[in-house]
Amino acid sequence: MKALLLTEYKNLEVTDVDEPAVGPDDVLVQVEACGICGSDIHGYDGSSGRRIPPLVMGHEAAGNVVRTGENVTDLKPGDAVTFDSMVSCGQCDFCRSGHQNLCDNRMVLGVSCGDYRRHGAFAERISVPRRIVYRLPDGLPLEHAALVEAVSVAVHAANVTPITLGDTAVVVGAGMIGLLTIQAVRAAGASRVIAIDINDRRLKVAQDVGATDVINSSQVDAVQTVIQMTDGRGADVAMEVVGMTPTVQTAIESVRKGGCVTLVGNVTPTIDLPLQSVVTREIRLQGTCGCNGEYPQCIDMMARGIIDVRPLITQKITLAQGPEWFDRLYKGDPDQMKVIVCPQT
Amino acid sequence: MKALLLTEYKNLEVTDVDEPAVGPDDVLVQVEACGICGSDIHGYDGSSGRRIPPLVMGHEAAGNVVRTGENVTDLKPGDAVTFDSMVSCGQCDFCRSGHQNLCDNRMVLGVSCGDYRRHGAFAERISVPRRIVYRLPDGLPLEHAALVEAVSVAVHAANVTPITLGDTAVVVGAGMIGLLTIQAVRAAGASRVIAIDINDRRLKVAQDVGATDVINSSQVDAVQTVIQMTDGRGADVAMEVVGMTPTVQTAIESVRKGGCVTLVGNVTPTIDLPLQSVVTREIRLQGTCGCNGEYPQCIDMMARGIIDVRPLITQKITLAQGPEWFDRLYKGDPDQMKVIVCPQT
Amino acid sequence: MKALLLTEYKNLEVTDVDEPAVGPDDVLVQVEACGICGSDIHGYDGSSGRRIPPLVMGHEAAGNVVRTGENVTDLKPGDAVTFDSMVSCGQCDFCRSGHQNLCDNRMVLGVSCGDYRRHGAFAERISVPRRIVYRLPDGLPLEHAALVEAVSVAVHAANVTPITLGDTAVVVGAGMIGLLTIQAVRAAGASRVIAIDINDRRLKVAQDVGATDVINSSQVDAVQTVIQMTDGRGADVAMEVVGMTPTVQTAIESVRKGGCVTLVGNVTPTIDLPLQSVVTREIRLQGTCGCNGEYPQCIDMMARGIIDVRPLITQKITLAQGPEWFDRLYKGDPDQMKVIVCPQT
Amino acid sequence: MKALLLTEYKNLEVTDVDEPAVGPDDVLVQVEACGICGSDIHGYDGSSGRRIPPLVMGHEAAGNVVRTGENVTDLKPGDAVTFDSMVSCGQCDFCRSGHQNLCDNRMVLGVSCGDYRRHGAFAERISVPRRIVYRLPDGLPLEHAALVEAVSVAVHAANVTPITLGDTAVVVGAGMIGLLTIQAVRAAGASRVIAIDINDRRLKVAQDVGATDVINSSQVDAVQTVIQMTDGRGADVAMEVVGMTPTVQTAIESVRKGGCVTLVGNVTPTIDLPLQSVVTREIRLQGTCGCNGEYPQCIDMMARGIIDVRPLITQKITLAQGPEWFDRLYKGDPDQMKVIVCPQT
Ligand SMILES: [Zn+2]
Ligand SMILES: [Zn+2]
Ligand SMILES: [Zn+2]
Ligand SMILES: [Zn+2]
Ligand SMILES: [Zn+2]
Ligand SMILES: [Zn+2]
Ligand SMILES: [Zn+2]
Ligand SMILES: [Zn+2]
Ligand SMILES: [Zn+2]
Ligand SMILES: [Zn+2]
Repeated sequence: MKALLLTEYKNLEVTDVDEPAVGPDDVLVQVEACGICGSDIHGYDGSSGRRIPPLVMGHEAAGNVVRTGENVTDLKPGDAVTFDSMVSCGQCDFCRSGHQNLCDNRMVLGVSCGDYRRHGAFAERISVPRRIVYRLPDGLPLEHAALVEAVSVAVHAANVTPITLGDTAVVVGAGMIGLLTIQAVRAAGASRVIAIDINDRRLKVAQDVGATDVINSSQVDAVQTVIQMTDGRGADVAMEVVGMTPTVQTAIESVRKGGCVTLVGNVTPTIDLPLQSVVTREIRLQGTCGCNGEYPQCIDMMARGIIDVRPLITQKITLAQGPEWFDRLYKGDPDQMKVIVCPQT
Repeated sequence: MKALLLTEYKNLEVTDVDEPAVGPDDVLVQVEACGICGSDIHGYDGSSGRRIPPLVMGHEAAGNVVRTGENVTDLKPGDAVTFDSMVSCGQCDFCRSGHQNLCDNRMVLGVSCGDYRRHGAFAERISVPRRIVYRLPDGLPLEHAALVEAVSVAVHAANVTPITLGDTAVVVGAGMIGLLTIQAVRAAGASRVIAIDINDRRLKVAQDVGATDVINSSQVDAVQTVIQMTDGRGADVAMEVVGMTPTVQTAIESVRKGGCVTLVGNVTPTIDLPLQSVVTREIRLQGTCGCNGEYPQCIDMMARGIIDVRPLITQKITLAQGPEWFDRLYKGDPDQMKVIVCPQT
Repeated sequence: MKALLLTEYKNLEVTDVDEPAVGPDDVLVQVEACGICGSDIHGYDGSSGRRIPPLVMGHEAAGNVVRTGENVTDLKPGDAVTFDSMVSCGQCDFCRSGHQNLCDNRMVLGVSCGDYRRHGAFAERISVPRRIVYRLPDGLPLEHAALVEAVSVAVHAANVTPITLGDTAVVVGAGMIGLLTIQAVRAAGASRVIAIDINDRRLKVAQDVGATDVINSSQVDAVQTVIQMTDGRGADVAMEVVGMTPTVQTAIESVRKGGCVTLVGNVTPTIDLPLQSVVTREIRLQGTCGCNGEYPQCIDMMARGIIDVRPLITQKITLAQGPEWFDRLYKGDPDQMKVIVCPQT
Repeated sequence: MKALLLTEYKNLEVTDVDEPAVGPDDVLVQVEACGICGSDIHGYDGSSGRRIPPLVMGHEAAGNVVRTGENVTDLKPGDAVTFDSMVSCGQCDFCRSGHQNLCDNRMVLGVSCGDYRRHGAFAERISVPRRIVYRLPDGLPLEHAALVEAVSVAVHAANVTPITLGDTAVVVGAGMIGLLTIQAVRAAGASRVIAIDINDRRLKVAQDVGATDVINSSQVDAVQTVIQMTDGRGADVAMEVVGMTPTVQTAIESVRKGGCVTLVGNVTPTIDLPLQSVVTREIRLQGTCGCNGEYPQCIDMMARGIIDVRPLITQKITLAQGPEWFDRLYKGDPDQMKVIVCPQT
């Protein structure tokens, strides 16, 4: 079958690879859509150390069942499905206490590091264990379903945040995850969502997906604006979706005493934290990582239109266009959010 | 001024009463809309013991500021306002720990019992303490604002319920509070809301306000239907808005292991509880009473259209029509939800 | 080897049975102590339907490792261990979300029902899967470790109860689980623990294990006494460890507005619930069932003396004495709490 | 009466001042013990800007009622009492939602800043509003009661931390608040408490008050030691009671994935935060400030011996010794924890 193979760092080729093996508990899926993730781009040049060539990358996918292993009785050819990008072990303390996202032994599809290699979904077909597969409801386009991983990050972030009905939420950063987070905190009860970014085009999309107010922090003092908008009080919660000192500080100073700042972004290893402000105002900073079992809920919310991913899909490409688009995204393209590879086109 | 006076039990008269006194911390409000509450109907015949005649009832009101006491500097004539129906003491342990709804010394407008009498809002004007008054945003009709008490009961019920994004919620009872509860749990993150009632007309309204599924429990086995709808698992939470043995049991048997049943309805003093089912399935039953500081959030959500009270207002009447309509509601009128008295018409 | 075999209902015999098979992931344990559980007594006469003869019962055990299957590398002969009485599936939604106690497919040692039969620990040796085995710290007597299941029920009950430092807790029922619950809520932060029972001897033990106050409800009005002891306010939480209408009502009326009643006992299928009191006082009723991963914490607290099981062990017997003692417990012996079978004596 | 007057920065004099006025809602207290707080030392040289001379400082006091204002009917001369150091307004959003410690308008005894001046308790007598006074139980020495503010800080810190029975807690910093925090987290359910400090003498006291393990971080790698002590997992929670980059980082790296670090210390305005570690391990950082209504619970726990302040009282002095001891503490005396001024001696 055809696949997009990382033959060496910074070199992708569309080539023929072996059909994947289908074990007794596996499902063979014909991939219709697979999103290019930021982690794929980081793997492309070897900087993450987690995509050692040769490797087929790709873990954000949806498609149709081709056939199933002998132990799989509840799926049949033609069923529309998506699957978890992450496989947790089910045995460690974290898995047993219901925190699969913190699993000590998790493995990711489309990744290779050291002695571990698991080919991904930038290919015509992929074989995955039944227990990470989710059937899709009628009417949910496969290219939307391919974004469930991104949606689940935003939904998990909202779930770990103490939101009360009618709260005011600030979302700092209106990139792809930020735009989904805006939708997630609205769905979780925030009646006012203030989006902060430095890019007016993103802020326009933010309004389209449900932000009630937007602030361009390159033009005005974002913290002061939030304080004014909330009659001097500050927001109840803030979602930080960037991960740098200025944005984290904006999030912290935007919330009221007793508020919560949920930390989603982490591009910087270390930041400057205003400790006294956090302590004397009794702020909670809540790290959040990946998702924890929220796929079924995310699929349901996408099918019902509660979360709308359409504004985030900026491009659909063929396998053949893969090398060119990886190169373009690697160099940076501020106009792109999610690029979807459609291996059957 | 004109007022609707309860002269003796079961007798209301529109008559002239003294203008209310306006103390230094008070606000005089011209009443434009005041809803008839179930508790007013219970007071009408003396059965509740809390409306000893002569009394002007009415506590669910909105209107415009006429003038303010000398210490009130942040409201001016013409401002649109509503006010809390309940005045908490601010001093008891419950108030100090943030539970005004559990206040040891709370007083209600439009109530008289023993040596306490506080005339209500079925009158042209009412005087209320500044600290219970809330200014209304532009564009929120006063007759909608008069329903904020009912909205706040539903919103508080949702706030004491552990709802996660994408949850399935059951609401047992689609009367006025039930219809608002449907909206509140959706706004709080439930993506699927199953309404249960015995009245198809109410279930139709339930769908209009956001129920995704409805069950007429006089026609099918409601519990079995919920179990089927949830693939054998049960709902995550249930809101019980009636308060009788069969409806509480329906709520309990509809939720999954580990689920929560929030108890809003309480028409029956005592019910039969399936204790073993609650214990062995680790169910939480959460009583909820009134609201606890949620008025500003409720006003905001009504103004933004997140909670829509229009389907609940079934009649608007004049003061003069008050006696006739109290009589009608006292006898029972299944077609009515909220009847609004408009004293200026 | 010797075992205590239920040959038919109400008939136990000490007899020779086959050595248990030791699979590759199993551990063979020489049983030094195995408690007689209430569920064993219920199984003895067939009333529970879960101990179909012939069966070796017993699931509350501790002992020493004899040998291990080939895949078990982290335990060696002579290690002191105890093990979970319950084996959860690890696959169902409840297991995956960290609620093993609610597992859809859990199995219990020493139980047989229909096509499932798993011999228990009233025997010289038992074979159990490695993943349910816990190594014991030095200095914890094996006969104490045999009570970890009972301890874990009390600890889990305390963990699902919202206890704040310095709270007042009521514990209704001072039997074995009640006496452990007293210790658990004290360890969880309650500085005052009021034990209620109708038996002065039990109440004396309650004081010995940490109850700060005791009430004999056959002699005084328990609710009124609690209200007086708390200056008219009521307790913050109550633990109900019986499961009958009068005791549940005592628990409910003993807590303050906004309080929590944790339901541990469930001897009665259905009780009368004072619904209006629960709703208007915003009480939380929290069912609790078994334990959920708390074994390591319980073992640690027992080893440190935070939870003391010694007052609960009222008798130690040999295998040979088993038939006589089952008969005695079946007829009811109010002086007995936990009877421990020691198969090596 | 005699008082210790701050006449100018860095100059205290024992002098005669006017008897305090006793308003209708006030209580006149004969001060028997008043602790010197760190904030008094910071006020001594004017660096905090909150003790503008002339001022009588002192807010951590206990004593006996001398007489009461006319509206105070529930206290009588001779009653042993302590009082809150902080007076919240009862009106702002934070007070109304039960967060007095976050009050927008709180005032502190023994403080003067701008147009606000409220003399404190380094004097023979002080007058305080009834609503901040707490009666003391028999048998609690007044010099112990003077430490209730410090105790309440530790208890509040434990209350905002999610502690489960049997958890392992790390406490970084074994000064006065650290030693109380060790006791608070034990009382709240942590069965293992690991104290970290650079001073062996403090660590010895830490063990005396209940730390199960101690680590001198100047001699070993504290994080590695915690990880080893917890079998590679990390502690469940950490309490940071210093407020500097290295100690906060020690706290963060000591906790397991999903753990909580409660931030009590705040000597440094800004620190370096390992953001990626916090986000990818889903850590919660919880600021905590002062206490929130915990005085009654703290008094109860002190009276019951659950929290023991005796090891923290390193010196008792007379008013006359005040100037000399302020000077000594201002220069720094590592041997001192709490110095108590006894104005009647
Ligand atoms: Zn991805
Ligand atoms: Zn990146
Ligand atoms: Zn795992
Ligand atoms: Zn009403
Ligand atoms: Zn009624
Ligand atoms: Zn009150
Ligand atoms: Zn048992
Ligand atoms: Zn399971
Ligand atoms: Zn202080
Ligand atoms: Zn305040």
